[in-house]
Amino acid sequence: MDKQLVEHVVTQVLDEMRLRPIPLGISNRHIHLSQQDYDRLFPEMPVTEKKALLQPGQFAAEQTVTLAGPKGQIKNVRLLGPLRGRSQVEISRTDARTLGIPAPLRMSGNLSGTPGVKLISPWAEIELESGVIVAQRHIHMSPLDALVLRVSHGDAVSVAIEGSGRRTLFDDVAVRVSPDMRLEMHIDTDEANASGADDPNAFARLVKHL
Amino acid sequence: MDKQLVEHVVTQVLDEMRLRPIPLGISNRHIHLSQQDYDRLFPEMPVTEKKALLQPGQFAAEQTVTLAGPKGQIKNVRLLGPLRGRSQVEISRTDARTLGIPAPLRMSGNLSGTPGVKLISPWAEIELESGVIVAQRHIHMSPLDALVLRVSHGDAVSVAIEGSGRRTLFDDVAVRVSPDMRLEMHIDTDEANASGADDPNAFARLVKHL
Repeated sequence: MDKQLVEHVVTQVLDEMRLRPIPLGISNRHIHLSQQDYDRLFPEMPVTEKKALLQPGQFAAEQTVTLAGPKGQIKNVRLLGPLRGRSQVEISRTDARTLGIPAPLRMSGNLSGTPGVKLISPWAEIELESGVIVAQRHIHMSPLDALVLRVSHGDAVSVAIEGSGRRTLFDDVAVRVSPDMRLEMHIDTDEANASGADDPNAFARLVKHL
Repeated sequence: MDKQLVEHVVTQVLDEMRLRPIPLGISNRHIHLSQQDYDRLFPEMPVTEKKALLQPGQFAAEQTVTLAGPKGQIKNVRLLGPLRGRSQVEISRTDARTLGIPAPLRMSGNLSGTPGVKLISPWAEIELESGVIVAQRHIHMSPLDALVLRVSHGDAVSVAIEGSGRRTLFDDVAVRVSPDMRLEMHIDTDEANASGADDPNAFARLVKHL
């Protein structure tokens, strides 16, 4: 094969890879806890894994808490592991209204100026001073995925959710590139419901621009 | 003015009108009732108007019911008036999960094969056999609006929700044209939350295609 043919084939393969569906992860409300907050809520108990998540090392724990805000409570909110440096509560805007907490749209970890919430376990109640957010929709990927998709860490891209009667293009989708990540788009339950992403036939694909 | 200049000015005005924001109406869960079902739930009481809606003659009533499904209940679900030929319950997919009712995506009035729900008032409980839907997003408009926007009754169009950190293009938006309707896009709370339409700066505009 000559060089031109090789380049042609590689370009074709990459073009096809770019059109592949992006796996969709629908994030229900959940919490991340610091070691200190975990120890107060679940004293003398190890974090126990209920189910592994697609992102390597991440898991849904057996432990759940109740969120209590000025307007209402939400029970059975699951802890995701492993424990982190700082506690963080990720809810949908629907949940924010139920609780009466004006949670802002933020990337995970960007918690300055965010409101707090009370966390209740069977053993303790603690008042988080801050850390409640609505998560900015985002795509996790490896550097190789980023190369194939021609995007970079920090980019905002557009993703079409196809296959249901509620076809939707989401703009403002953040790209998160890290060697320990696998290709997966994370949206919350409001976004999944609005776009039909909860339909078994639904799939996501990157689109050039809106 | 010669004919060409007039045509030029009219075209310009129409182009500008097409770019104007479409008023957004966010539909919270609500019910419509037939006279018969209303009389059983609220015996010997007239329907009382709490607040007029943008669509002429439509109003939110003082009367509310509780929806009861196999998995849960939702209280304070408002009746919209006037009464209709057939009762209909419009909920979000989030609500559908709370209730445990597999409500399908439908245009208002298209109720064949839809699931039912129990309606509870302070005076009675009735079991609706069918009529629970998740409303297909749609735009109400007058024939003049349709002429300006170059769309027809029954068209599916695309609408961008701009102005928040969650810019979204909704496809599969149904066009409903009627002389007694005013220009207004109706989306449900899931769709509003997902697209940032609940942000005070948000606005909707028609886009050519996705």
